[in-house]
Amino acid sequence: MGGFHFSTDVRVRFAETDAQGVAHNSNYLVWFEIARIAYLEEFAGGYPALRETGLESFVLESHVSYRLPAHFDDRLKIHARVGELRGARFRFEYEVTRAGEPIADGWTSHACVDAKTLRPTRIPQALADAIARAESSSAASSAKSSSASSSLSS
Amino acid sequence: MGGFHFSTDVRVRFAETDAQGVAHNSNYLVWFEIARIAYLEEFAGGYPALRETGLESFVLESHVSYRLPAHFDDRLKIHARVGELRGARFRFEYEVTRAGEPIADGWTSHACVDAKTLRPTRIPQALADAIARAESSSAASSAKSSSASSSLSS
Amino acid sequence: MGGFHFSTDVRVRFAETDAQGVAHNSNYLVWFEIARIAYLEEFAGGYPALRETGLESFVLESHVSYRLPAHFDDRLKIHARVGELRGARFRFEYEVTRAGEPIADGWTSHACVDAKTLRPTRIPQALADAIARAESSSAASSAKSSSASSSLSS
Amino acid sequence: MGGFHFSTDVRVRFAETDAQGVAHNSNYLVWFEIARIAYLEEFAGGYPALRETGLESFVLESHVSYRLPAHFDDRLKIHARVGELRGARFRFEYEVTRAGEPIADGWTSHACVDAKTLRPTRIPQALADAIARAESSSAASSAKSSSASSSLSS
Repeated sequence: MGGFHFSTDVRVRFAETDAQGVAHNSNYLVWFEIARIAYLEEFAGGYPALRETGLESFVLESHVSYRLPAHFDDRLKIHARVGELRGARFRFEYEVTRAGEPIADGWTSHACVDAKTLRPTRIPQALADAIARAESSSAASSAKSSSASSSLSS
Repeated sequence: MGGFHFSTDVRVRFAETDAQGVAHNSNYLVWFEIARIAYLEEFAGGYPALRETGLESFVLESHVSYRLPAHFDDRLKIHARVGELRGARFRFEYEVTRAGEPIADGWTSHACVDAKTLRPTRIPQALADAIARAESSSAASSAKSSSASSSLSS
Repeated sequence: MGGFHFSTDVRVRFAETDAQGVAHNSNYLVWFEIARIAYLEEFAGGYPALRETGLESFVLESHVSYRLPAHFDDRLKIHARVGELRGARFRFEYEVTRAGEPIADGWTSHACVDAKTLRPTRIPQALADAIARAESSSAASSAKSSSASSSLSS
Repeated sequence: MGGFHFSTDVRVRFAETDAQGVAHNSNYLVWFEIARIAYLEEFAGGYPALRETGLESFVLESHVSYRLPAHFDDRLKIHARVGELRGARFRFEYEVTRAGEPIADGWTSHACVDAKTLRPTRIPQALADAIARAESSSAASSAKSSSASSSLSS
């Protein structure tokens, strides 16, 4: 896929493997979520900040393409970017790489809702602007990566 | 979606909920797998039997559409059918219902491989025939459902 | 251990296995919880009813002894009983059997708290009485078991 | 507890929370395992190296004491040490801290077995020695901590 400016590190846990000896297919959605949350923290004040504005978001759809299996202790990079953001909806795209090689990709789509009424609510302009800046900075900056435990200033 | 002749029962576990108070999005892939395995047991001698023939299968893609959230202790039916079966590939389709109402749907695609060489291998004719019979029996029979702990004769 | 009058059925999910080919050790705590919730539903109006009284409960300790591994698709019975109930605290004991053979056991201890203040709160007398009746009925009745999807009259 | 010379970092995943808004009690066993594997990697050539010698290990018992709940995005340190090592058995002890405050502790006991025969097998002397050195270095060195993604020289 390419074109990602953000990634977060995940190491395959033993508890995430299954009796086929590979990471179970459901874990990719957990890893996507980790990357999504780290992305929002990096560029948009974070998911907790979003919730404090009285908004909540729900996953509408998820998709994963598994190209090569991941194994116990593999060090993976989960690349993430916002592929689309319109009104109350946004879509994240992901690529999972191991030693630079893509082993999976996917996307999730989301709706932003009012936390009390659960009605679809326009994504706050400040968040939309922050994401637009993050995604347009690709030409100017080289790819950055953030480990799960460190924070990067953008 | 409709047109499903098989379903299996799942009850949302407390451990499957998240801090939004709903079943976490990754669990749907676990539920799809439970239904897939129950389907194969029902119509095709079971997944263990498949493995005994020296075959293994891998998930190539997964897709979930979340329409309504599921909550702790919800009793769900996971409907499953084989939507396509060609050469070494097959595709399962799913619908999740609660009290008859669809709350999610999705599909997974799979490759059948030789367990030793991991090379794509044609699905055994007996399995393909059993599935074809299962799916074509729709006109003749009304929808059946199987609980996780009981077995149905078809 | 013996002396259990309640059990619930669990079938080992493929997603619960790990690369050693056995059910991962963390799942036993999930199965214990399933049995605990089913027990409360059976004998005490259920966990949702408990929460409606403004109470919440937290796990204080957990313990598991693994005697024999569990494998994919194993049909297990999770036996549960209340071993102690005093003031704001209670303790559940469990035994996991497969075809009648014990393969694991354990216990969890819990505190009952006010859902708002989180202060320890005496277990409601009606609940304590219901549990006492359930546990004392052992002499009179033979062991009962309940599948996850059916309800038993006590 | 104190007296730990090793720790690894874990950040509470959203998928690890439950409808009570806290990390589900079963995840602590997963975190203990992450710390155990990181410990073996740090001091003993790693779990993969252990398996290459034809040995396998199984969890015999697990115990967790939950003192304070952990929440989404909490940065936790999972401290680990070998508390006992005798013949074919060893025991790990753990403490979970958040910003220096202990929020949980526990232990797991293990048996070392021959991977083929599954018979109990004495822990290799080199591994026992490496662990003895690691645990006795406490007087000389101050506590070290290792992030999941960095490696420490001992």
